[in-house]
Amino acid sequence: MHDLDALLQPRSIAVIGASTQPDKVGGMPIRLLRELGYPGRIYPVHRDAGEIQGLRAYPSLAAIGVPVDLAIVAVPAAAALDVMAQLGQAGVRAAVYFTSGFAETGGADDDAQGAQDARGARLQQALARAAQAHGVLLLGPNCLGAMNLRERVFATFSPVPLAGVPPVGDVALVSQSGAFGAYAFALAREAGLGLSHWVTTGNEAGLQLADVIAWLARDDATRVILVYMEGCRDGARLRGALAAARAAGKPVVVAKVGVTAAGARSAQSHTASLTGEDAVYQAVFDEYNVHRADTLEAFFRLGYVLSRGRRPARWSSPAGLAAGAVAPLAIVTVSGGVGIMMADSAERLGVPLPPMPPEAARALREAIPFASTANPIDVTGQIMAQPAVLLGALEAVADSPAYGCVAAFLAGGLNSPRLWSGLQQSVAALQARGGAPLLLSGLVDDDKRAWLEARGCLVFREPAHAVEAVVTLARAAALEALEALEAGGHGAMPEATSLPALPALPDDAAALSEFEALRLLSAAGVPVAAHGLADDADEAAAIAAQIGFPVAVKLCSREVLHKSDVGGVVLGVADADGVRAAFAQARAALARCRDASGRPPRFEGVLVARMVRGRGELMVGVRRDPVFGPVALAGIGGTAVEVLRQTAFGLAPLSPARARDMLARSRAAALCESHRGHAPLDLDAIAEVLVRVSHCAVALGERLDTLEINPFIIGADGLCAADAVITLRPPA
Amino acid sequence: MHDLDALLQPRSIAVIGASTQPDKVGGMPIRLLRELGYPGRIYPVHRDAGEIQGLRAYPSLAAIGVPVDLAIVAVPAAAALDVMAQLGQAGVRAAVYFTSGFAETGGADDDAQGAQDARGARLQQALARAAQAHGVLLLGPNCLGAMNLRERVFATFSPVPLAGVPPVGDVALVSQSGAFGAYAFALAREAGLGLSHWVTTGNEAGLQLADVIAWLARDDATRVILVYMEGCRDGARLRGALAAARAAGKPVVVAKVGVTAAGARSAQSHTASLTGEDAVYQAVFDEYNVHRADTLEAFFRLGYVLSRGRRPARWSSPAGLAAGAVAPLAIVTVSGGVGIMMADSAERLGVPLPPMPPEAARALREAIPFASTANPIDVTGQIMAQPAVLLGALEAVADSPAYGCVAAFLAGGLNSPRLWSGLQQSVAALQARGGAPLLLSGLVDDDKRAWLEARGCLVFREPAHAVEAVVTLARAAALEALEALEAGGHGAMPEATSLPALPALPDDAAALSEFEALRLLSAAGVPVAAHGLADDADEAAAIAAQIGFPVAVKLCSREVLHKSDVGGVVLGVADADGVRAAFAQARAALARCRDASGRPPRFEGVLVARMVRGRGELMVGVRRDPVFGPVALAGIGGTAVEVLRQTAFGLAPLSPARARDMLARSRAAALCESHRGHAPLDLDAIAEVLVRVSHCAVALGERLDTLEINPFIIGADGLCAADAVITLRPPA
Repeated sequence: MHDLDALLQPRSIAVIGASTQPDKVGGMPIRLLRELGYPGRIYPVHRDAGEIQGLRAYPSLAAIGVPVDLAIVAVPAAAALDVMAQLGQAGVRAAVYFTSGFAETGGADDDAQGAQDARGARLQQALARAAQAHGVLLLGPNCLGAMNLRERVFATFSPVPLAGVPPVGDVALVSQSGAFGAYAFALAREAGLGLSHWVTTGNEAGLQLADVIAWLARDDATRVILVYMEGCRDGARLRGALAAARAAGKPVVVAKVGVTAAGARSAQSHTASLTGEDAVYQAVFDEYNVHRADTLEAFFRLGYVLSRGRRPARWSSPAGLAAGAVAPLAIVTVSGGVGIMMADSAERLGVPLPPMPPEAARALREAIPFASTANPIDVTGQIMAQPAVLLGALEAVADSPAYGCVAAFLAGGLNSPRLWSGLQQSVAALQARGGAPLLLSGLVDDDKRAWLEARGCLVFREPAHAVEAVVTLARAAALEALEALEAGGHGAMPEATSLPALPALPDDAAALSEFEALRLLSAAGVPVAAHGLADDADEAAAIAAQIGFPVAVKLCSREVLHKSDVGGVVLGVADADGVRAAFAQARAALARCRDASGRPPRFEGVLVARMVRGRGELMVGVRRDPVFGPVALAGIGGTAVEVLRQTAFGLAPLSPARARDMLARSRAAALCESHRGHAPLDLDAIAEVLVRVSHCAVALGERLDTLEINPFIIGADGLCAADAVITLRPPA
Repeated sequence: MHDLDALLQPRSIAVIGASTQPDKVGGMPIRLLRELGYPGRIYPVHRDAGEIQGLRAYPSLAAIGVPVDLAIVAVPAAAALDVMAQLGQAGVRAAVYFTSGFAETGGADDDAQGAQDARGARLQQALARAAQAHGVLLLGPNCLGAMNLRERVFATFSPVPLAGVPPVGDVALVSQSGAFGAYAFALAREAGLGLSHWVTTGNEAGLQLADVIAWLARDDATRVILVYMEGCRDGARLRGALAAARAAGKPVVVAKVGVTAAGARSAQSHTASLTGEDAVYQAVFDEYNVHRADTLEAFFRLGYVLSRGRRPARWSSPAGLAAGAVAPLAIVTVSGGVGIMMADSAERLGVPLPPMPPEAARALREAIPFASTANPIDVTGQIMAQPAVLLGALEAVADSPAYGCVAAFLAGGLNSPRLWSGLQQSVAALQARGGAPLLLSGLVDDDKRAWLEARGCLVFREPAHAVEAVVTLARAAALEALEALEAGGHGAMPEATSLPALPALPDDAAALSEFEALRLLSAAGVPVAAHGLADDADEAAAIAAQIGFPVAVKLCSREVLHKSDVGGVVLGVADADGVRAAFAQARAALARCRDASGRPPRFEGVLVARMVRGRGELMVGVRRDPVFGPVALAGIGGTAVEVLRQTAFGLAPLSPARARDMLARSRAAALCESHRGHAPLDLDAIAEVLVRVSHCAVALGERLDTLEINPFIIGADGLCAADAVITLRPPA
């Protein structure tokens, strides 16, 4: 855990490479700090100049003579290491390196640059090592710096604050990209979104996004953390930071780019970061209830909603996960048509629309006979003449235990003086007594909007955005109550899935044989098809007779994982003679194989297993992500539906709720529903298998590479793994 | 085809029920017409008042003494019919009825209102008949009226124009909802979107949305038609209007609400309109290349893009349909991160990102060595110091034949004086020589935005919206070239699928037997499983021997459609004895059935058919929509994938391109791809079957109710219908 106080709350700042020209990289931070009112000491460092932008300049850090918290470094790359040594000697605690010419030069798509590129990356490694050796907290290099709006710290060379600074607020913005950060700063200013901190991490030789998130999670001035991310090199660090934010009940909103193949290609060519598979990132975000934005508009809207919106007291999470939380919604509208649009949005998002309480419905119908008292509640344009009726309906639903949120479309009504004064009273009263939060949409003047927002009452131009805010706020409410909601899902394994000791892994193998894999899974409590390992044809026939026909006969070897491809599998063998013939065929298949030394692999036996049929087949497994470690996956298996497969990912180990959610997202849960006269299957039993598989993978530790059960048969008679592959990494 | 000239371009307007109070329903139109400068004559009609709002008032229509084009009617429902008679006598050509209390009262959810509700609906029918009898074009009742912004016609009682009128432009807005229309008007004003006409149709006793769309399709002042729709009662009229707009090359944007079950429920309780199944509406929109918006924001953005955006000269339509058109895109960005976000958007939308032409890439790299010349093209923030490099890159890609559009993210750069003057020259030059349209994103002052938009250069705050505009503009370009693109797809049936004469339908049956259905499909050129109809067990055995074993033996009756449910189907019969036993079973199953008179249905024979296996099963059919007529559907069939089924809809008859598109959308096309070592299947052959089925249904005419082939087997050996049901409606 890094202490970013010296970076974000420095009492004094030195600028190394200070410029007399206020618009140069080394001049801009001095200009910003002075013009925008930084209250601490500023020490320009310049070899010759006695004065810079009206401040006394110093020929060296040492010449300052007092300790400095933060150094802003704007020198060429060639001088970067020298400066770091001076920082260390002077006891500077933190440094922002604007300097470019490091690992980012490797992003160019021209091979002639090869030698130059490698030099940049090596220089960056040296800088990182020097910072660590000198105990200097390093932001950058190749970054646009950082700001703390409350404390007027502007450690950046971006001119964007010159055009104005957003209000001080509780939203922090962290970005790996400087240009993105600068544009986001401008958009926050335009939208009047209150910011606490603004940090760009650049090449991340020292501080990473994760370190900033972890610090913000403990910062009292920050309530919401907006993150722009291109990639992550240290999965554990990011997970720790997101866990800290979750534990603090602070929502995190991520714009993670490089989602698609095209995006990932350009991300890789653009930065020094690794971009992994998006589905794995999504599993991380799911685990820590991170809100995700695909567009800048959604990024800022989520920040606005989470920063300003009052949380609903009533919400539910059918999936048992904060990410699945919704609040029951009352839609109140002056336009039937817009109400229907909002109902469409609610249904798409899974937001329930319970009917209006009968008494409130009666009161509304008495006042306005043409009003519709279903939900959406259409108060009609008539309420412009009878504003008290609208306010009565709003308060009635906001006070009703049936609803968690109220979304009201008022068209231009907010600017009507008669409606406005009454609405102010209603909003204040509802806030005071903890009624459901109001999410308004329509046209409104800026001063009225500010008045409403100060009371946790959000206003949108787009009615659909008010409905989306219901989901966002329900998730935030669930996050704050998270310990209760997801208890047992993290850390400790639920009792029902505690694992006994597993067989030890062979040191010298790159994979287990199918027999070993099934034995290990069976030990972990995963149901497997009845089977036995035969050394000769007679033993195979005896095992088959014991299991019952028909059986599958399969070559079993640590070195032949794709046994079907070499003719090593015979399915549906109906009698003892067939088993003997199949045994011979499997042995012959092995004899045709070659290991690394060019010889056939050692004979380990032939597996005889029961043929199992079911209503459907799943693919269940775990694989090691290079950044985030073991990731569980589940999806529908089998040939016929292969083309329709949707694989769901989740961080291992899984909680039962997370496992159920994966089955739902992969549509595997749909196989369990009753159809064509079949009784429904027990989804919880399948989820428990997923949980056990995920815990099994975690218990295997660093050795595990991949674990795949395919097919995992689900049927009315039970569940069972019909084939399994486990591959291993060399011992550490 | 209605002539709406008198409604939308009246030379004189009478206001029946005129009020001296300018804010009353009968006073507001007079106020608006006078204050906003209507140039024609205004005749207030009032029994007593000699003067209204400074105008001479008339005691009756007759007293005016000269012909009047348009009457605005603001009288109570009880007087509505009398007024219509007077309009007829005075020769008034068109009337806008604001009056409420008609069919919309049936929307209330209180049964006590029943009698009142029926009265409203009857009154509306009488009003519609009277309007027709008198030759008066009727808008409404229960509508907010109409406006023509160019000719300053404000035939509405909505006060919304008092706060300002949008600029005169080429976007027309038609809405079934008055409140929606008023809010949309205000949003258009806020966004500066130029409008030509604004029409709300209310209860549609006379004019429907479709009539207004058809008139606008011929109106020279209108280029884009925005439509808010809750439902449609007359499918043929709507199809005709959309066809007229398509033929005129005018894009139509529809916000159709009631999409989800919740939305449809509230739509039904809210209006007097029928709301049908959304998938059928979507098929209609697909057929006529209608752009669809789910939110108000998207609705207006589509209007903006289609109204102001220059069309790309280079686009392609891989699906052979205007709706699938895309333009190859060059992304130019000052921020690598935002560029990646845009690349993600492009990939999601299927927009290709071809690489930068080598020469342009070389020039860029020479000027800015760190620039990325992949696509996204990252010119970096450095271009603020070297604007000529950005402009060179923009012009190079806009002139390159590789691209149809250029989307450039410039952050705050548009407001930089050095960049702006150069950009103006580039934009003007590109427009003059027909380079690819520029879609800019970033912050920009209003005057600069207006300058750019006047030259077909769009500007967005949200970079993802610039990428979405590429698809929108490519569709618009394809629409304008539609005759060439979709030639043969509409109207005349393509030669390859011309049908021979089909067997006549029985007059007295509600369904065909499976034998009859297969015969009919076979006559239409649809491949069916080899089969025969047996009267006795020996004949069944003989047919089976001729076909080859195994066979399916099925009860065949016009009156027993669900023959599996009564034990009338035996599959996989392996020999002649089995066939005889199965025949007996099918006969016995029939004997247990009862028809409407309580007796077993007549024996029509037993079907013996070849058992067919394939790589997959489809469900292919046609069903009659009550509003839009025959609609074709296709989806993946079979038990295992039933839970994953996505059915695609298309208006019958289908073009081959539309049929291929349905197979793609239903994921059925994925079954045809090569996987697990199987060779790919011929998608075009399956599409031809869909086309034949759809033409067959159309040829059957009004008698056809539903036609369903399930399963339709697709395999490497060929295609064949293994079962078919055809149900009929009574003869007219």
